Amino acid sequence: MTAKRPSLMVVGSVAYDDIRTAELSGERLLGGSASHFSFAAALAGAHPRVVAVVGEDFDRSDIELLAAIPADLGGLAIRPGKSFRWGGAYNEDFSERVTLFTELGVFEDFQPELPESFKNEGVIFLANIHPALQGRVLDAARSPRLVALDTMNLWIDLNRAELEAVLPRVDLFFVNEEEARMLSGETNLVLAGEKILEMGPRACCLKKGEHGVLLFVDGQILPLPGFPVRELVDPTGAGDCFAGGVMGCLAASGSLDAKGLREACLAGSVLGSMAVEGLGVTGLKGRSHEEFRDRLAAFKRLLGISG
Amino acid sequence: MTAKRPSLMVVGSVAYDDIRTAELSGERLLGGSASHFSFAAALAGAHPRVVAVVGEDFDRSDIELLAAIPADLGGLAIRPGKSFRWGGAYNEDFSERVTLFTELGVFEDFQPELPESFKNEGVIFLANIHPALQGRVLDAARSPRLVALDTMNLWIDLNRAELEAVLPRVDLFFVNEEEARMLSGETNLVLAGEKILEMGPRACCLKKGEHGVLLFVDGQILPLPGFPVRELVDPTGAGDCFAGGVMGCLAASGSLDAKGLREACLAGSVLGSMAVEGLGVTGLKGRSHEEFRDRLAAFKRLLGISG
Repeated sequence: MTAKRPSLMVVGSVAYDDIRTAELSGERLLGGSASHFSFAAALAGAHPRVVAVVGEDFDRSDIELLAAIPADLGGLAIRPGKSFRWGGAYNEDFSERVTLFTELGVFEDFQPELPESFKNEGVIFLANIHPALQGRVLDAARSPRLVALDTMNLWIDLNRAELEAVLPRVDLFFVNEEEARMLSGETNLVLAGEKILEMGPRACCLKKGEHGVLLFVDGQILPLPGFPVRELVDPTGAGDCFAGGVMGCLAASGSLDAKGLREACLAGSVLGSMAVEGLGVTGLKGRSHEEFRDRLAAFKRLLGISG
Repeated sequence: MTAKRPSLMVVGSVAYDDIRTAELSGERLLGGSASHFSFAAALAGAHPRVVAVVGEDFDRSDIELLAAIPADLGGLAIRPGKSFRWGGAYNEDFSERVTLFTELGVFEDFQPELPESFKNEGVIFLANIHPALQGRVLDAARSPRLVALDTMNLWIDLNRAELEAVLPRVDLFFVNEEEARMLSGETNLVLAGEKILEMGPRACCLKKGEHGVLLFVDGQILPLPGFPVRELVDPTGAGDCFAGGVMGCLAASGSLDAKGLREACLAGSVLGSMAVEGLGVTGLKGRSHEEFRDRLAAFKRLLGISG
């Protein structure tokens, strides 16, 4: 099965999260953008190749868990020191999140190194890392054909020039509402997305959390709803799972036109909804491709989308 | 043409609005829920019958404007006193609105009276008025077959019992996010909508402004995106125009199942988007049914919705 899956590469974090919600809490939960992304991309039918770094404290069982996704861990470096750890607490209705601590550990000096076999990978997701590092990954890639990029408010604030340098090299830019407004200086999201496209990415996926996305692609503005979530357990990593679903689909279809991106984003929304039904990666761990496929089909049927 | 249009009745306000935005302002602009609703319902192909009250100060030219929608003004009472006036100001990005003044005038003692010819109307929209009055309209209606109702935070807060008494008589309940949370005590919108259905309405349209709607119908939860608005001029009355579009469609199709409501809400979203492109009712005034139909068709094509 693995051999037939279309591959894609993700460059990001593999981390341990401490998470507290009103109902549940957990410590040293497997997390990080590359982990969440990989679980979702695999459920969407792709084979993720992970480029990340962990410390010597990283549990063997978690390596095995990631490998069993299945993911290619050829780019997962193990360095002397501690793994990236993050702790956060949500309020009762998940409208607010407080960061309790951030210990970057070996992630602080993360220099993504692509194994030789990864350098020919054509589908690349640059998760939220320093934009200069994102650029260096693209320098090392020999034949990128579909490059997607995520970022965060920190880089927009402190490293805007580096971010603006990498955006023209990007096919699909994932950005949330707050980041889009910050980056564009526009509060209207339609104008914000249009301004962001002028910065160079071929398409933009403006994420509005539970309210879905606004896609800017092929000169069109396409709003899509989010899959309704009845039981929100833990939203950590939802954005990375969404991106994993989108990229997993695009790796298979290869078509970044409005129709292809629409289909991919519906898949991403469905995987995001499954992800938040469990703490950490447990929302997606152990779920089957068939469960994802059935939920996506039901969602499309409900929306009246046939194609 | 008018004779062939399916009719529907709206009971609400006809008023004069003073509106200020960062770019524009206007005084004594024709407004009120029944006015906005009627413009949209007519563009959707229906013939609205208006039940409302104005004062002796109401301009003849505005009566003519409403009649030319075309709307049946057989239920528009003219009473001694002043017309309902409201003034509001928006901040630059429309994220906040301040009420500058409210002068209820003759609307304070509004007792909706249905002309004999209106009593047989089957499709009824009860715009945001006191829930006891909404109930009395239903008492007077001889053969309601599709009853929709709007409300506001004030009634939820002060007249909950009367609102809860009328909800079981409603086929389609329009409610916004804030009102839904207030009425249900749930912050999660899926749970809020489900709890509201338990209060009696057959279906619920939970409105999320620019983010679209969550529909609760036929045991399903159907999220729909909002039509993206590039140039927001004046959001006053957008909710009433949305409802007018929804009800105008439903009056023609008569089917309040998931598919019928989906189609109607897409139409409502398109009319809402046209409405906010102008100050007061100018967003819809003078627009053609063809323009609405073309925008709706383009929206559905973009979303991949064929049915």
